[in-house]
Amino acid sequence: MTDKLAADLAALQFANDAFYEAFAAADLKAMAAIWADVPTIFCCHPGWPPLTSHAEVMASWRDILADAGPIPVTCTVPRPHLLGEVGLVCCYERFANQHLVATNLFIRSSRQWRMFHHHAGPLARMPEEAVVPDAPSRP
Amino acid sequence: MTDKLAADLAALQFANDAFYEAFAAADLKAMAAIWADVPTIFCCHPGWPPLTSHAEVMASWRDILADAGPIPVTCTVPRPHLLGEVGLVCCYERFANQHLVATNLFIRSSRQWRMFHHHAGPLARMPEEAVVPDAPSRP
Repeated sequence: MTDKLAADLAALQFANDAFYEAFAAADLKAMAAIWADVPTIFCCHPGWPPLTSHAEVMASWRDILADAGPIPVTCTVPRPHLLGEVGLVCCYERFANQHLVATNLFIRSSRQWRMFHHHAGPLARMPEEAVVPDAPSRP
Repeated sequence: MTDKLAADLAALQFANDAFYEAFAAADLKAMAAIWADVPTIFCCHPGWPPLTSHAEVMASWRDILADAGPIPVTCTVPRPHLLGEVGLVCCYERFANQHLVATNLFIRSSRQWRMFHHHAGPLARMPEEAVVPDAPSRP
């Protein structure tokens, strides 16, 4: 792997992490900074039809994050891949006892990766590779 | 829209249609021709963890399509988009009474679009834009 590819993949993974950090912190301002404001945009929240405009996507996050307090979401086993100016991360999401799989797509804009597609759907069960042991309780 | 863009979008939509035609016909040979044999490949069947190799993806379709006979799957409201050599189609899938939303990603290879990512997840309900009226019964 070249240094440039490694740096690009690290930046893509950083953008994916930033998405889950904004989600977990219910930080709408950080979430808005993560999404690309481009004509081609999709967001498929679990069970929802695709939202297809920047305004709709941001309104949905406003609703989801409003007054939520911290959200117990964690991302595991992110698999980042580059395809020209498109970055794809396939990963697991865990919300307390609910397990999902996500497709996250990013586009490079001014040297930053910004999300233009998010699709999360439920898993029948969390695969072993994605299980993060709970922190041990204090003695 | 330029003629080239229109032709590229039509070819992308054709590839997406071919995927659903192979699925509906339970035609494993046609399905194999649709998938790219590249190192970066993901297939998230509803409820499944991502399959991450061409061999795993093809084995899954072998299991799903084997002895299935025709499968009542239809694709509606496909939204094709181009991002360099990557094609994205976000669409609905209907299986009898089950409604899903799908993310399909294609990569251009030898002037043909080939799928390298498929993610389908359930919808809480089919949105009105995606409802195709059943054919009227004969008088």
